[in-house]
Amino acid sequence: MSIKIVIAGPRGRMGSEAVSMVLEEPSFSLIGCVDRIVSPISIMEENHIPVFTSFEECLYTLPDVDVLIDLTVAESGFNHIMMALEHKVRCVVGTTGFTSQQLNDIQDTAVKNQTGCIVAPNFAIGAVLMMHFSKVAAKFFPDVEIIEKHHAQKIDAPSGTALKTVEMIKEVRKSRDQGHIYELETMIGARGATDDGVHIHSVRLPGHVAHQEVIFGGDGQTLTIKHDSINRKSFMEGIKLSVKQVMQLNDYVYGLDNILDLT
Amino acid sequence: MSIKIVIAGPRGRMGSEAVSMVLEEPSFSLIGCVDRIVSPISIMEENHIPVFTSFEECLYTLPDVDVLIDLTVAESGFNHIMMALEHKVRCVVGTTGFTSQQLNDIQDTAVKNQTGCIVAPNFAIGAVLMMHFSKVAAKFFPDVEIIEKHHAQKIDAPSGTALKTVEMIKEVRKSRDQGHIYELETMIGARGATDDGVHIHSVRLPGHVAHQEVIFGGDGQTLTIKHDSINRKSFMEGIKLSVKQVMQLNDYVYGLDNILDLT
Amino acid sequence: MSIKIVIAGPRGRMGSEAVSMVLEEPSFSLIGCVDRIVSPISIMEENHIPVFTSFEECLYTLPDVDVLIDLTVAESGFNHIMMALEHKVRCVVGTTGFTSQQLNDIQDTAVKNQTGCIVAPNFAIGAVLMMHFSKVAAKFFPDVEIIEKHHAQKIDAPSGTALKTVEMIKEVRKSRDQGHIYELETMIGARGATDDGVHIHSVRLPGHVAHQEVIFGGDGQTLTIKHDSINRKSFMEGIKLSVKQVMQLNDYVYGLDNILDLT
Amino acid sequence: MSIKIVIAGPRGRMGSEAVSMVLEEPSFSLIGCVDRIVSPISIMEENHIPVFTSFEECLYTLPDVDVLIDLTVAESGFNHIMMALEHKVRCVVGTTGFTSQQLNDIQDTAVKNQTGCIVAPNFAIGAVLMMHFSKVAAKFFPDVEIIEKHHAQKIDAPSGTALKTVEMIKEVRKSRDQGHIYELETMIGARGATDDGVHIHSVRLPGHVAHQEVIFGGDGQTLTIKHDSINRKSFMEGIKLSVKQVMQLNDYVYGLDNILDLT
Repeated sequence: MSIKIVIAGPRGRMGSEAVSMVLEEPSFSLIGCVDRIVSPISIMEENHIPVFTSFEECLYTLPDVDVLIDLTVAESGFNHIMMALEHKVRCVVGTTGFTSQQLNDIQDTAVKNQTGCIVAPNFAIGAVLMMHFSKVAAKFFPDVEIIEKHHAQKIDAPSGTALKTVEMIKEVRKSRDQGHIYELETMIGARGATDDGVHIHSVRLPGHVAHQEVIFGGDGQTLTIKHDSINRKSFMEGIKLSVKQVMQLNDYVYGLDNILDLT
Repeated sequence: MSIKIVIAGPRGRMGSEAVSMVLEEPSFSLIGCVDRIVSPISIMEENHIPVFTSFEECLYTLPDVDVLIDLTVAESGFNHIMMALEHKVRCVVGTTGFTSQQLNDIQDTAVKNQTGCIVAPNFAIGAVLMMHFSKVAAKFFPDVEIIEKHHAQKIDAPSGTALKTVEMIKEVRKSRDQGHIYELETMIGARGATDDGVHIHSVRLPGHVAHQEVIFGGDGQTLTIKHDSINRKSFMEGIKLSVKQVMQLNDYVYGLDNILDLT
Repeated sequence: MSIKIVIAGPRGRMGSEAVSMVLEEPSFSLIGCVDRIVSPISIMEENHIPVFTSFEECLYTLPDVDVLIDLTVAESGFNHIMMALEHKVRCVVGTTGFTSQQLNDIQDTAVKNQTGCIVAPNFAIGAVLMMHFSKVAAKFFPDVEIIEKHHAQKIDAPSGTALKTVEMIKEVRKSRDQGHIYELETMIGARGATDDGVHIHSVRLPGHVAHQEVIFGGDGQTLTIKHDSINRKSFMEGIKLSVKQVMQLNDYVYGLDNILDLT
Repeated sequence: MSIKIVIAGPRGRMGSEAVSMVLEEPSFSLIGCVDRIVSPISIMEENHIPVFTSFEECLYTLPDVDVLIDLTVAESGFNHIMMALEHKVRCVVGTTGFTSQQLNDIQDTAVKNQTGCIVAPNFAIGAVLMMHFSKVAAKFFPDVEIIEKHHAQKIDAPSGTALKTVEMIKEVRKSRDQGHIYELETMIGARGATDDGVHIHSVRLPGHVAHQEVIFGGDGQTLTIKHDSINRKSFMEGIKLSVKQVMQLNDYVYGLDNILDLT
């Protein structure tokens, strides 16, 4: 028996990849989509998959949905998820931007209805492993610097992944300064940004997509954990795994790392 | 109170680094060495540390040794360790080449005497983490290749660390072929060595010391775990940690990974 | 005055990128395309660019073409180029698979008609620089190994770029064996493929596209030249440069390296 | 006939490596050293090589010196070199810190005496090639960032090599800003130091020695030139080559790049 899936947000960059992934995975069956506008999507037409503009209508028409994959925006996503959980439809959520209150409500509703729900801000398994390994390595190597590289059109520096990595490292690493005690920047910024002694360097160049390396230094050795992502396909393996896992779940899980066997 | 340490094999490449490390670490106290020959070692003379050619004599002269660090060869090392454990002297062992029978005997003696003993084939924490992380990552990324790089005078290829890494990966990864089903080597050896579908590539060049990267590939992403070692100082942090841990131990542990908190 | 361009092969993977590039470059003007079949191409219709199924008809209809960019296959490409040169239309050729005789004929025709023609097997400037720099470095570092990494669906190993790089290195490097004189492969293939003592290692993993690093080793140092290509856009800069250069040319040039100022 | 060499500064870190190199090279003969103090150097005694505290005395005692290798400090080095050139002894100079006036005087004296003299601030051929290749690549890839990594005890950032690399790149690259026009550093320093739009990032970690990578980005591709140096042996190949080249020279050359065949 294949898992019957509805995707909300099939037109977006993540959503369109998810549609392809679900169609290709033999154990999955795409039975419908929820889109914000009425406008034909060729891959849906080719595969005779109904598209609804209301999730309520979708649930009414398709009463046996197993999993909702929500890849929309916080406002509509919240409504979809709450309604799904009330109908005991399991959820895999890649939508971001929820308030803490919304996340609490989602959790409460999942628990109350004993319905599995996985919310994850990052479905790239490689990135999640990079952050987890960095946290473990920081227990043994307190000297650490991060180099993240992105395409030239990224506005903010450092990247969200770099900031999240430092947060995780700080959970296990005592605050300390690194480098020479009289270190001198002869050009401002050379040593990068610093958070609690961890230095972060942001490279922006055409030809890059999304890359990060976390370098740990010790006497006579360095350990480097590096993740390179070149397109959104990198998120699909995490979504696929989450769909399979959520079928075994009856409550709420936040973060892909909490469903991965990291031992 | 500092930990009172005897080093066996102070003249070797590992041993001489260990002598420096123990002398520099404030919580350690080097109270003697055991050497195979009678010949002055300047750093011992400078620090007024007695050198014995017999471990028996050493134990007799220094009755309050806390930890023996053995960095010799299998034959004499085995004798040192057995005698130390019988005298309830804890052991940290970097000596290699023991038979399974010898390792069993060491374990039995440690347990019988309720005396901590750590035997580790590799004290480079970075290398141990690289292997552990590779095993975890292989659960999610079955496509993996290893590139190891060593100095041009290394005789064997692949390196022992590469072989050990593959063994650990195989514990969690189903056997599978990688690459194109009709893959064609137009030059023999281009795709490297293969064990259970994992490809291993050995680079030998002057300017390298000991390096390994384990590359995991998935749709749209790669995850790389890399360790670079440029001298034997890289082993000292692991020995230091083991000495501290063995003081809390009353039995036998094999492998540095079994004393590290890898969660 | 913009350069008036016709593209042959606008539907292919290289050709469709070239169409976008020419449309975006202010100093270029796309005045027509030559396609093998009669079938609408939306970007052509949107930009009101005529598509011809015969280059002869194209030349007849558009008498003032400055440059033909040919990205087809050897058979039709040869006919296009010969006809273009006879009509004093300059050519930039990315089509591959020509025989030596065909290349000779193209060269003779270009020279006879005093019409610029650039034929290049690789328009990725980064790859061309990597190969050139490798040739220069090999004069000083005879110990060299190549690691090339491609996606898991590439059939042949080593890659064409790796083979070409070795050819260029061999022009300046004396034949020699590398590594330990008694080197021992305990697993067949570990040391990679070997050409004249240069070792080549081919990695094939999902998540890779097309990557190569050339590593030179000397006492205490290594020098690495690395090129990473993640899509066909990487060829467009080279085509753009070639179109501008060919306007200054009255004869035949083979290879992008021969129009780049590499001093 | 071997080349008869005198080394000034045999006790220093570069000098002691140079002594070993000259002793090992079959075509070289070490006939004397000039040291600032009277104190035995074991390798000199073992090889029966006279050590002088005055270069004048050295020249008087050893009238047939071919080449002086000077690895001292600016003040004494200047005196050695001027005296050597006046006596038509060729010079290879790794000493740094000369004033422009001193360099001019050295040049004039070399030319006047028609005696070869090579002065180079960096004898690591790999580093010199990295800088040269970077200058060439910058003609085609104006978007470039530099990451340099050094041991944690280096005081200044960026490194001298990084600054020199930017200077060379600026000779061929038009000034331009890189990255997004509205780029936002949410943490100060994340984007590194900037010179004329070229970003420089300095990593300082134990386990590193001296490393630099210059990354050029273009549409769909990156080109990386990387140099890793792990000890002073990396300078010896450049000194060896310079000694051989200076024998063919009758005037003054500044910079290793000016004696290397970089075509």
